[in-house]
Amino acid sequence: MLGKGEFGRIRDLLTPLSGKGAFDLEDDAGVLSETLGHEIVVTTDTIVSGVHFHGSEPPEEIAAKLLRVNLSDLAAMGTKPICYTLNWSLPSSYDDEWVISFCAGLKVQQEIFGIYLLGGDSTSTPGPACLTATLFGHVPRGQVLRRAGTKLGETIFVSGTIGDGALGLLAEQGMLADLDKALARKLIGRYRIPEPRIGLGIALRGRASAAADISDGLLADIGHLTDLAGLGAEVKMSEIPLSSGARSALAINSELWQVIVGGGDDYELVFTGERGLADTLTNIGVNITAIGKITAEPSVRLIGANGNIMQVNKEGYCHS
Amino acid sequence: MLGKGEFGRIRDLLTPLSGKGAFDLEDDAGVLSETLGHEIVVTTDTIVSGVHFHGSEPPEEIAAKLLRVNLSDLAAMGTKPICYTLNWSLPSSYDDEWVISFCAGLKVQQEIFGIYLLGGDSTSTPGPACLTATLFGHVPRGQVLRRAGTKLGETIFVSGTIGDGALGLLAEQGMLADLDKALARKLIGRYRIPEPRIGLGIALRGRASAAADISDGLLADIGHLTDLAGLGAEVKMSEIPLSSGARSALAINSELWQVIVGGGDDYELVFTGERGLADTLTNIGVNITAIGKITAEPSVRLIGANGNIMQVNKEGYCHS
Repeated sequence: MLGKGEFGRIRDLLTPLSGKGAFDLEDDAGVLSETLGHEIVVTTDTIVSGVHFHGSEPPEEIAAKLLRVNLSDLAAMGTKPICYTLNWSLPSSYDDEWVISFCAGLKVQQEIFGIYLLGGDSTSTPGPACLTATLFGHVPRGQVLRRAGTKLGETIFVSGTIGDGALGLLAEQGMLADLDKALARKLIGRYRIPEPRIGLGIALRGRASAAADISDGLLADIGHLTDLAGLGAEVKMSEIPLSSGARSALAINSELWQVIVGGGDDYELVFTGERGLADTLTNIGVNITAIGKITAEPSVRLIGANGNIMQVNKEGYCHS
Repeated sequence: MLGKGEFGRIRDLLTPLSGKGAFDLEDDAGVLSETLGHEIVVTTDTIVSGVHFHGSEPPEEIAAKLLRVNLSDLAAMGTKPICYTLNWSLPSSYDDEWVISFCAGLKVQQEIFGIYLLGGDSTSTPGPACLTATLFGHVPRGQVLRRAGTKLGETIFVSGTIGDGALGLLAEQGMLADLDKALARKLIGRYRIPEPRIGLGIALRGRASAAADISDGLLADIGHLTDLAGLGAEVKMSEIPLSSGARSALAINSELWQVIVGGGDDYELVFTGERGLADTLTNIGVNITAIGKITAEPSVRLIGANGNIMQVNKEGYCHS
């Protein structure tokens, strides 16, 4: 952990971000506040320049993405976020201005999600920037949402719209040149700054039988739920909720449905439960759509408008 | 966190290392087991190839160092280790054999320290390997050891022998060519595989007024304790405990005392308390030595055999 005397400049920027149990980042470790009757949920994700971001994004945006992909994992577990640790390994080309902007970005996200910095480590690297955040949250004992638990005949729901993350990446790479520029910008925004569904995750405690966030791709993440239950799923293509950007992209190139169901980085939640589950969810700030059902047949099948199974060929989607 | 379907090969190696609350690494997050009346202590450190290790070490040794530098932070807080998360960003040149050996190394350390894997993340990187471990431990409520708390007139103690880490690095770099080869190997071993003083840290709960692990260098780490208390320290060079390797290196080159008091990576504990504190510590598996005292004068001073203040010039040691 950061110690007194190390990284003076960075500590001066980080200490104001710290909170309860962080001891002003002066100690060898931090102490997690405990809430009686709650469990502490831990998740961690690393992003690397040149792999998960290209490095020329505004530093505030990189800070947002780092925290939000982790917050999405907490959301999928029905967890209220509390605090985080941060490990950054930065090349010498990242100057003061970059670091100051990155910390400003952390502060913005902290205020949005009500979290604080517990501790961390800062190192140099001869390679690309490598950033790790580890997020901590509370959930009442026994109420953590799991990927396992889906039951035969249950309905599959998703939040928000699907495919925007993967289409946003394509747009950023200039591969959706014919798309309206404003719609393209919206998709790129969805890719760059995901919206973790914290409120929905909390509302799903005790209601959903299983949940995951959509980071690998819709069908792959449904496969994670069904595999653990030894079951399968039927998903109706026509029911998958699409943004205006996704609809427009699809109108231009009808083959993009493969990207929508196979691409990742949506960070919406996919979950299962009774058919009427969606009606019990109020004030969650996002639309919920039923897109299919859990089946005994152990595969994830996408059903087209004509009732036929659509042949998914997206690389990276490998569920049988 | 690792999700089902991602990194199949790595998950097969890591799942056997996982324990309570890790859900076989199948979920978006892990759940920390709580112990009534205890606080959860969190620490995290990152090591980067080319910065903290050169990369050609046996993978088992890199795994050991990664966990042990973190365990040393827990020791400094008087904490019993429980589990850890692991983030690895590896270049494609790290083959199956490397990964298998690294996991075998994790397993060895898990058995030594009674810890298990709670979760993690695995990414590729176009740069050098970047490894983060975040360690979790328990301490009875209110008994966490802190860096703050040192009082005027107290005695300064250290565990083990001092300077071996920094001398080991010099030996590894071929800078101690005249030193007996067996002694040099011992010093290199101390640098490569530090010994976290877990048992000592636990024994110091409620006994030591302040503690830190020696990672920045003896005088710098004493400075961390005294700065927080607005006090200073006098350390007697003649009282600093040295290994036979350090004594032999010093006999060959008397200037190496600068490395001994200024170098880091010893991972011994430095702590303060009543003069008789050492006598109350039993079965801790390491020698304890009183090396100085806490003073009102706010600087850390090293006193030579003639009673004069020795002029410390080690780069990186910057306490006034």
